[in-house]
Amino acid sequence: MLIVQKYGGTSVGGLDRIESVAKRVAKTKFKGNSVVVVVSAMSGETNKLTEYARHFSKNPSKREMDILLSSGERVTASLLAIALQEMGVGAIAMTGRQAGIQTNSAHTYARIESINTDAMKRELDEGNIIIVAGFQGINKEDRVTTLGRGGSDLSAVAIAAALGADACEIYSDVDGVYTTDPRVEPRAKKLDFISYEEMLELSSLGAKVLQSRSVELAKKMGVKIVAKSSFSDNEGTIISEESDEMEEVLVSGIALDKNQARVSLREVSDRPGVAAEIFTMLAKEQINVDMIIQNASTDGTTNLGFTVPQSEMEHVERVIGQFGEDIGSVDFDENICKVSVVGVGMKSHSGVAASAFSALADANINIQMISTSEIKVSVIVDEKFGELAVRVLHEIYQLDK
Amino acid sequence: MLIVQKYGGTSVGGLDRIESVAKRVAKTKFKGNSVVVVVSAMSGETNKLTEYARHFSKNPSKREMDILLSSGERVTASLLAIALQEMGVGAIAMTGRQAGIQTNSAHTYARIESINTDAMKRELDEGNIIIVAGFQGINKEDRVTTLGRGGSDLSAVAIAAALGADACEIYSDVDGVYTTDPRVEPRAKKLDFISYEEMLELSSLGAKVLQSRSVELAKKMGVKIVAKSSFSDNEGTIISEESDEMEEVLVSGIALDKNQARVSLREVSDRPGVAAEIFTMLAKEQINVDMIIQNASTDGTTNLGFTVPQSEMEHVERVIGQFGEDIGSVDFDENICKVSVVGVGMKSHSGVAASAFSALADANINIQMISTSEIKVSVIVDEKFGELAVRVLHEIYQLDK
Repeated sequence: MLIVQKYGGTSVGGLDRIESVAKRVAKTKFKGNSVVVVVSAMSGETNKLTEYARHFSKNPSKREMDILLSSGERVTASLLAIALQEMGVGAIAMTGRQAGIQTNSAHTYARIESINTDAMKRELDEGNIIIVAGFQGINKEDRVTTLGRGGSDLSAVAIAAALGADACEIYSDVDGVYTTDPRVEPRAKKLDFISYEEMLELSSLGAKVLQSRSVELAKKMGVKIVAKSSFSDNEGTIISEESDEMEEVLVSGIALDKNQARVSLREVSDRPGVAAEIFTMLAKEQINVDMIIQNASTDGTTNLGFTVPQSEMEHVERVIGQFGEDIGSVDFDENICKVSVVGVGMKSHSGVAASAFSALADANINIQMISTSEIKVSVIVDEKFGELAVRVLHEIYQLDK
Repeated sequence: MLIVQKYGGTSVGGLDRIESVAKRVAKTKFKGNSVVVVVSAMSGETNKLTEYARHFSKNPSKREMDILLSSGERVTASLLAIALQEMGVGAIAMTGRQAGIQTNSAHTYARIESINTDAMKRELDEGNIIIVAGFQGINKEDRVTTLGRGGSDLSAVAIAAALGADACEIYSDVDGVYTTDPRVEPRAKKLDFISYEEMLELSSLGAKVLQSRSVELAKKMGVKIVAKSSFSDNEGTIISEESDEMEEVLVSGIALDKNQARVSLREVSDRPGVAAEIFTMLAKEQINVDMIIQNASTDGTTNLGFTVPQSEMEHVERVIGQFGEDIGSVDFDENICKVSVVGVGMKSHSGVAASAFSALADANINIQMISTSEIKVSVIVDEKFGELAVRVLHEIYQLDK
């Protein structure tokens, strides 16, 4: 089998950790597999380098940030290769460029455009383990690019797709995907399987195990992901196409997202197209608007509510400011959170939304906004009720069973 | 003017130091010059990474060491570029590869084979300052290489030669080349000028200001070097072709090298060719043999003495071991040092060797070995007399005047 393994920052957070990763990689090789490993920078390293840059500039050039930040992964890749060689295992470190990872030119959040696998295939044919510095590539102008936070996941999935790997194992300090955050609900259970779609909903909703871009890519390319811990030998969670088996499960998990803010626009001119203009402008500014509610009012104006990431609040204020008299007033509320029930089973079972709403009502939790998709029901509630809402929903869908 | 500046590890040893280097670079630019800057890793960084590697292996793969070690210079280069941009000065960071530095494949001690200056010229034409990560290049197999200790000096001189720069300023924490080590002789004086040849003798003899490979390259390519301190505004020392003016000075400096060991081979078979075989073998093993003395003895054998760097002692022992019965016994003596008098004036003035020997004799310092070149007289003396010998010679050639 050809296996791609990716080790995150805490998994390679120190020399002893790198040693233990080397053993794990060697073991995979000794079982007769071909192995490509993608590594992140040692934990804390990327933040340290970012702070260095911020010492000089609040808004450092992205082109230079990419040369700066890509250095951390190179250190880990070469150290891991050296550790493996010392065990007598053939290994070679490769930078993103050497691994053939070609990206577009969007520095600090580049997209992988293609992977030239020639060099990797040559090394695999010679029986070597390849250690690729994650998170980085090279653009057409021959400059180093990075793929954004969590970009090493993306490197791993893209390499797995390009090489036609049998699995892409993503190692971190958690041993898989849980029915909800165990810090919120200690009875949360690790899932054996989850579909790409569910994982996407969960990761974009704040259940951070995998970067969502990498799940999207895995889905598109049909790469089977296994999320595992590098600190234990527990079986992880397999993320793959949904199967009949999965659809029998109504709800897979409950996600809690505290990073949302609610924007309330009051006395918006009721002339046609104002709402469209507002959301077009927000989209143009790449502000990720989530739920939207519109209430017609009685006095010829409208109230509009929507949620955005808290980090975008200032940005939203600037955009809304351009509408002048068309908008009466703007309010921001950070004291909210989003609780989501996710499950592919919803596609074929109705009534999940209803049972969720009534369970929350029974617990006296007021629902401020609602949004639903084919496999998800999300509600906005007061931030202080977030954890309670998660536990209530975890309970009624019997996720601890 | 087109000026190449190189800043060493202590000059970029912290964020405040990088800030101050940025100001110096900007000032050079504001005077109307085109500027290319070559930077080392922050001081301590390369050692830290080397220790990391040695945690895993006593003899880590050189190919992987090159990816590892080249990361330090990339960090400094991008930070300096960011600092300059923040001052409103156009600057771009380049890795060795981006700067077009092509080397041979000798990992960790690669030689620069050519520099494709297209990318640098394009940026200079646009008025940008270029910050190049020193010490690194790329080989024909597209892999990162490094140039060995002090390799950033070499990057700077090679870039200055390739671009036809008017000067190559090498910044460190000392403000130039001195008549001798000021820690040994406080009356040592900074030289205004020194020839390449003298600098070569001094640097290979332990007066560490410039890496000798870079001085050799500067000599070959006619690059004017200025050795300066980044911690002061003092004029530095100009290293260039020798001029008539230089030749009027009999002696330029006195160097002390404590890193030599003397190897004494006793009872070497007196058959023809044995000495040649020994030194051929040592040369093949790239052991740098310095002085050689041969004494014919009375009993049909010979005694052979020579000096090598102390770090090569084990290596020498292994090589000598191969000669079996042809060599009676081997002795190593680390308690020696080499004191050298250097000056292009010697070419046209005789008697320097004689005056040096008699001055040392007057001070009761016994000379164990002697070697001379056109512009140098070196003697091996007991290590404990090294500093005294330096002061005696500094005095008789009136170098403090």
